[in-house]
Parts: sequence; structure tokens; C-alpha cells
Amino acid sequence: MTNGQELHTTLEWRVHAPDGTVEILVQEELGPRWRLFRWMHGLVAEFIIKLSTFMLKAWNIGVNDPKKFIHCLKVGTALSLVSLFYYMRTLYEGVGGNAMWAVMTVVVVFEYSIGATLYKCVNRAAGTLVAGVLGFGVHWMAIQCGEEIEPIVLEISVFLLAAAATFSRFIPTVKARFDYGAMVFILTFCLVSISGYRVDQLFEMAHHRLLTVTLGASICIITSMLVCPIWAGQELHALITRNLEKLSESLDACFIDFFADRGVKNVSHGYFSKMNQAYKCVLNSKTSEESMANFARWEPAHGDFKFRHPWKQYLKVGAAIRSCAYCIETLNGCINSDIRAPETLKKHLKDMCVSLSSYSSNVIKELAAMMKTMTKSSSIHISIGQMNIAVYELQDALKNVPSQVVVQILQASNNSINKETTNTRPLLEILPLATIASLLIELASRVEVIVKEVNQLADQADFALNSNSGSKETHSIT
Amino acid sequence: MTNGQELHTTLEWRVHAPDGTVEILVQEELGPRWRLFRWMHGLVAEFIIKLSTFMLKAWNIGVNDPKKFIHCLKVGTALSLVSLFYYMRTLYEGVGGNAMWAVMTVVVVFEYSIGATLYKCVNRAAGTLVAGVLGFGVHWMAIQCGEEIEPIVLEISVFLLAAAATFSRFIPTVKARFDYGAMVFILTFCLVSISGYRVDQLFEMAHHRLLTVTLGASICIITSMLVCPIWAGQELHALITRNLEKLSESLDACFIDFFADRGVKNVSHGYFSKMNQAYKCVLNSKTSEESMANFARWEPAHGDFKFRHPWKQYLKVGAAIRSCAYCIETLNGCINSDIRAPETLKKHLKDMCVSLSSYSSNVIKELAAMMKTMTKSSSIHISIGQMNIAVYELQDALKNVPSQVVVQILQASNNSINKETTNTRPLLEILPLATIASLLIELASRVEVIVKEVNQLADQADFALNSNSGSKETHSIT
Repeated sequence: MTNGQELHTTLEWRVHAPDGTVEILVQEELGPRWRLFRWMHGLVAEFIIKLSTFMLKAWNIGVNDPKKFIHCLKVGTALSLVSLFYYMRTLYEGVGGNAMWAVMTVVVVFEYSIGATLYKCVNRAAGTLVAGVLGFGVHWMAIQCGEEIEPIVLEISVFLLAAAATFSRFIPTVKARFDYGAMVFILTFCLVSISGYRVDQLFEMAHHRLLTVTLGASICIITSMLVCPIWAGQELHALITRNLEKLSESLDACFIDFFADRGVKNVSHGYFSKMNQAYKCVLNSKTSEESMANFARWEPAHGDFKFRHPWKQYLKVGAAIRSCAYCIETLNGCINSDIRAPETLKKHLKDMCVSLSSYSSNVIKELAAMMKTMTKSSSIHISIGQMNIAVYELQDALKNVPSQVVVQILQASNNSINKETTNTRPLLEILPLATIASLLIELASRVEVIVKEVNQLADQADFALNSNSGSKETHSIT
Repeated sequence: MTNGQELHTTLEWRVHAPDGTVEILVQEELGPRWRLFRWMHGLVAEFIIKLSTFMLKAWNIGVNDPKKFIHCLKVGTALSLVSLFYYMRTLYEGVGGNAMWAVMTVVVVFEYSIGATLYKCVNRAAGTLVAGVLGFGVHWMAIQCGEEIEPIVLEISVFLLAAAATFSRFIPTVKARFDYGAMVFILTFCLVSISGYRVDQLFEMAHHRLLTVTLGASICIITSMLVCPIWAGQELHALITRNLEKLSESLDACFIDFFADRGVKNVSHGYFSKMNQAYKCVLNSKTSEESMANFARWEPAHGDFKFRHPWKQYLKVGAAIRSCAYCIETLNGCINSDIRAPETLKKHLKDMCVSLSSYSSNVIKELAAMMKTMTKSSSIHISIGQMNIAVYELQDALKNVPSQVVVQILQASNNSINKETTNTRPLLEILPLATIASLLIELASRVEVIVKEVNQLADQADFALNSNSGSKETHSIT
């Protein structure tokens, strides 16, 4: 529209002198170098800001869970130890050029928890051995067939065994325990059967390689066990305990939020909303629970956990906790939906709902304490009893609702007020509250499932009997 | 208690001859060899039975998802191809003893989906390059420091960089995209910086290694892309579609189950119970959805999916689907709990609940069809409208419940029957039904969230407009 005319939009600085003259300050033209510098400067500044926020985030991850820092230092230590072999001439010459395999083993095998490290070590060893023996066998067989057919036999064996081992990784039981082993099997079998065709000193190579891999694996196991050990079993135990605590927190928070007075609600909203979300971590913890239980099976006895600790039972407890969390999720949806219950009804049901939810939450807290101290609680039956009484009371309160409503209507009809307009209101107004009450009752029954599973765990794992759960809190394992 | 006396508990065979005499048949003593044979025989038989059930299970896994068989054949093919290099003397001598690295790359990098394979290839390449350059740099620096200090500088650099790279794997954004790259970085850096101290022909080694790794990676990519490609993006799309279908199945089944007549229920119980469990897969699909979405980002355009297909939006759709599944889980708990609602009430609410659930299920089915055909449905608004009408009708039906009850009570009080005994029953009897109705209304609101997310996906991914969804079913991508 401006047809080639450029609009003059730069700023002008005018200096009004006391004698009335006006001087216009002209901005100096910036040279291309200066502009490039400014552009670079902006770029660098932006990069630094992004990098620093990223570093801060990363730092916070470590601060929130110092075990992660420790793990990193452990990896560094193990690698430094293994690299020493390169610098010690006598050691290096003992294993030939294969010292590389020790480094590789440490990098690949060292995992966060001891269980995972052991799982990888055992799998690597088993996979290598089986594949090595099979590889030698196939190699020997191929040689017997003559030089012409040898490559064909080897090719076919590689194809078949690689396909079979790959398929085995899709089978759930194999995947859970030997996934890594199957991969190592394929790798070693290919290396042995193929390179057997070339390398003449196959036996010597195998011997050296085995030596270096064992060296690397032992350095991993020793470092991970001696320096601040992180046990998968203990982590699983702590995760389940934490999930129980989160559940009770969410349960407490969601009712304080719902029934709070307006003033209190506004002040505390941020805090409770955050608490309310605690159960969301529980909803998706299945995968990590399963992998931890898998790794825990490989661990020796440690701390309060014996060799055949019932790790499978933890998965059942976890499933029961999740089933409660689903219920809380739905409850949260109902609470957040638009409720226009009359204040009188709210007050009528308030005490019952709050007491039931707090008794349920108490039971869950007691279970968390049981897990934390690894003791059987003698007072849990009392808490369950209180929860059940609260269930009956709530049911009783619900029973009394319609009678009150009906009485009002009867009075209204006695006073000759049109009953059509008054008696269609009640159920829809009660409905959200009745649903919440009903979900709370359902929740209580699910809490009892958790109690059952935790008790079974306590029996299987021989938790000590504790008559006074308060005084033994000091024996906490976490 | 028997004080050393052994009880004679073996069986006796007595033959009563016609002349009255009794002959006792003595069992022949089994020789130790025979017993060993029998024991071995039993052991082998048991092993064969266990093995055959295991093989049958494994076979069924493959039959249910033939893509798994295909993947295994692809791995076998890729390994056979790469092992050819060992047999071709000219190729082998070109890369020295490093042909091993090609085999290793294929075994480690070849994954189920193309996205995962590309992710690993890119990560391996990037990790190797960065670590290689850095390793050379550190190695050069260490040489400048003199022979005495050289190992110390190398040790410190290995410790620091390994710890830093290990820590980076804990940061969620890095873990999602570069977890494997970080591991390869540590591995390569250690190998380069440490072996640099020994191997004099470092550059030549790096050159050969790079060549072989590239060779292995290209074989992987070519095989996975050309032979029956399995795209992570397509799998994610199919997973979300299947989850929608499962949701609607479960919704249909759980109400047929609940409101069915006794006779029908008993006959069909097994079938519907199985259908009912379909939503359980949806509850725990978050992890696999996230990993698929991660891999899908690495894939080039394929089929109906463009390069920048909104994979992140799939996660939002998945979350909305899961939120519905939580609701169904709770609903299922309520339906399975002991309900003693009077038949008249059941009938009153039955039509409303069934129609709402079937309309909700229809909306979900329509969404599944939208996803399957990748077209915008013009009839979805009608289905949503029908669902909303069903919500209003159900709310209306609930409104009418108390008035009916009240009318009965009013009539009862007119007939001078004691009102105390009749009017305390209603709400507790309505409660389970009212809860189910209320949860269905909540479910309908969550279905609308899915609709919103799927529509957003349709906008972002430019789904074609489809005026007649029935006739275009043939364009299905699965």
C-alpha cells in the first residue's frame, strides 16, 4: 500500500537549548561488525540462560535424590579402576589386547541398583557361556563338512539361532529374566561362530576374553556392593511405602478441599491441590514396580530382607494400592464437578464423609508405618474397626436423608403447598453427595483389600510383632 | 512312637486257588539300574511336557501377532548379511579385524520398530562422534603434560566425564531422547582415551571402526525399512485405536452383564467377563505409549503420517482414554458389589442407563473409526448430541425417582400405615443405582474430553473430511 515509500519510524532525540534552539541528535549508524557482535552476544546470552536453567533442573534432580549423585560417582570410580589395567604394563600384557573387554563390560553392566547389576552380570555370563559352547560346536561341525560347505552351514546356523533367540525375547517369562542374556547370546554366538572361520587362536581368545569380562564384572559388583549400596528390593519396599503415604495424603487433602469454608479453601488451595495430585504417581507405577521386583529377585539377603523375600507379594500390594488410586481419581472428578448441594445437606453428610475418609486414611497410614518398620501392627484391627463403624454411620446418615426430605414434604403437603414443585428436587441435589458417599464406601472396601495383601506380606516375610507401633518408629529401614 | 519297628506297608497280591490254598505273589525287586531308568524316564517326560507347553505358548504369541515372527526373520537376515563380510576375503581385508564391529552394531542396534532402530543408530553415531573427538582432545592434552602426568590426566577425565554422562541419563528430557547415546558416549570415550595410550595407529583404528559401524547400521536400516517395515508411529496409532475399541467393548459388556436377566447372564457370563477385562490393558498402557511416541519422532514420513505428525497429541488422547478407563474400573467395582435394588426401580433406571452407556460407547466407537480411517467424521456431532440427550434423560429419570417414592409414602400415610418403617428404606436402596447413574454421567463428560483431544489431533494431523464414514472403511490403514 505504501508503494515503495519507506516509513521513517526511527526515534528522534531532540535537545531543547535554553536559547530556544532545538538540536536533533542523530543516532550513529551501526557497522556490520558491531551488529554481528550484538547478534552473537544475544545468541550466547540466550544459550547461557537456557543452559543454566537446564543445569539448575538437573542439579535439583540430584539434590532431591542424592543416591543419583552417588551412583554417578560409583560409575566413575569403577571405570577409573578398570582403566588402571591399561596403565599397569604387567597386567596389560597378561591379557593381551583384550583389556578393552573389561572396560566395555563395566560400561554395559553397571546399573543403578545391585539387583540390576547382578541380573546383567549373570545374564552376560550365562549368555556368553551357552553361546560360546554352541558356537564352538557349530564351528566344529562346519569344519567336518568340508571347506566348500563350511560358510553355508555357519550362515544357516547364525540365521536360525539369531531368529530363535530374538523370538524368545517376546515371551514374557523370558523377557522378565533373560532379555539381556538373549541379546548377549546372539552377539557371542555370531562372534564365535563367524570369527572362528578366521581367527586361528580361537581358544586363547576365548580364554582372554573370559578373564577380562570376569574382571570387569567383579569390579562392577564390588563397587556397587561396597560403596553406598542401592538395593532394588529396598527401593521397591520404599516405593510401596511411599505410595501408601501418598494415597493417604491425597485422601486427606481432597476432603479438606471439598468441605472447607470458602476462606480457608482459598488460602490453602495451592497446598492442597499439590497434595491432591500425589495419587497420580501411584496410577502409573506398575512398570517400575515390576522391574524392581524382577531385579530384587537376583539380590542376596540384605538388611531386613532375607534371600527368598516374597517380592511377588509386593506386586499384589501395589495392584491393591492402584485400585484405591483409581477410586480416588473418580472421586476427585466428582468433587471437582459442579455441585450445588444445599448447605443443610452438606452439613448433614459432612461429618460422616470426613470421618470415614480420615479413618480410611488412618488405616492406610498405619499400613505405611507397618511397612516402614517391618513390624506387624496390633492396633491395625482397631483402625479397621473404626473405619467400618464409620461406613455404617455413613450408611445410616444416608438412610436418614430421605426421611427428612419426606417429612419436609409431608409437612409441606399438610400446609397445602403444591407438592409437585417441592418433591422433584431432592434426589438430583443429593446425587453428587450420595455418589461421593458411595465411592467412599467402595474405597473403604478397597482399603480392606490392601490390608489383606499387606497382612499376607507380613506373614510371608515374617514381620516382627509390635505391640506399640509408636515406640519402634526408630527401627525404620528407610 | 514305633520305636524302631518298621510298619510293613507294601501291597500284597493273594491268589485264591479253587482248592482253597492261598498263594502270595511277591513283587519282584527292582534293580537299581531299572529304578534309575524309571526316574530318568519320569524326569525326561516331565521336561518334555513342560517344554511343549512352553513352546505352544510361545507359538501362540507369534500367531497372535505375526509381526513378531517377521521381526525375528529380519534379525536373522541382517546378521546373515553382515556375516557375509567375513567370508568375502576382499571385503574382510579392507577393514582389518574390525569386521566384528559390524556384527556387534547389528545385534545391538536392530530393534522391533524402525523408529527404535533409527533412534539407536543416530544415538550410536552421535555418541561415538562426540566421544571420539573429545577422547582425541583429552589424549592430545595428556601428551602435552608429559609422560608422568599423562595417566593421571586421563584417569581424571574418564572419572569426570563418565560421572557427568551417567548423571545426564537421569534427566527426563535426555533420557527420553539420548539415553543410549549417553551410554555409547561413555563407552567410546573410555576406549579412545584409554587405548590411545597403547595403540599407536589410533587414527587408522578409528577410521576402520567408523566404516564397519556405518556398514552395520546401514544394513539394519535397510533391512528394517525394506522387509515388512514396522513403524513405531503406525503401532502407536493402532494402539490408541485399539484402546478406544476396548473401552467401548468394556462399556457395552459391563451393562449387558449388570442388567441381564438371570438366564441370559449365566449363559453369557464367561464371554462378557472376558470382554469386561478389556479396559484393564488400557489402564497400564502409558509407558508403552510414551516409548512409541519417542521412537515415532525419529521416523521419516510413512503411509498417512507426515514428517511432523503430532505424536505428542497421541499422548494426550491416551491420557483421556485412561481417565475414562479409571471411571469404568470404579463403575465395575460398584456393579460387582452386592446390589439389592428393587426390581421396579431397576426397570425404571435400566433403559436410561443402558441407553446412556450405549450412546457413550457409540461416540467412542465413532472416534475409533475416525482414527482407523484417519478422516474427520461429520456424524460425530450427532452421536455426541444423542449422548448428551441421554444424560439429560437419565438426570430426568433420577428426578422422578423421589417423587414416585414420595407419592407412595403419601398414599401410605393416607392409608394410615406407619410411615416410619416405610420411608427409611428408599435412599439406601437407590444408592448403588444412583451411584452408577452418576458415574455414567461423569463418564460421559470424560468421553467429551476424548472427543476434544481426538478432534485436536484431527486438526493438527489434517485428517480428511469424510461425509459418509461407512463407505470409507476400506481405506483403513491397519
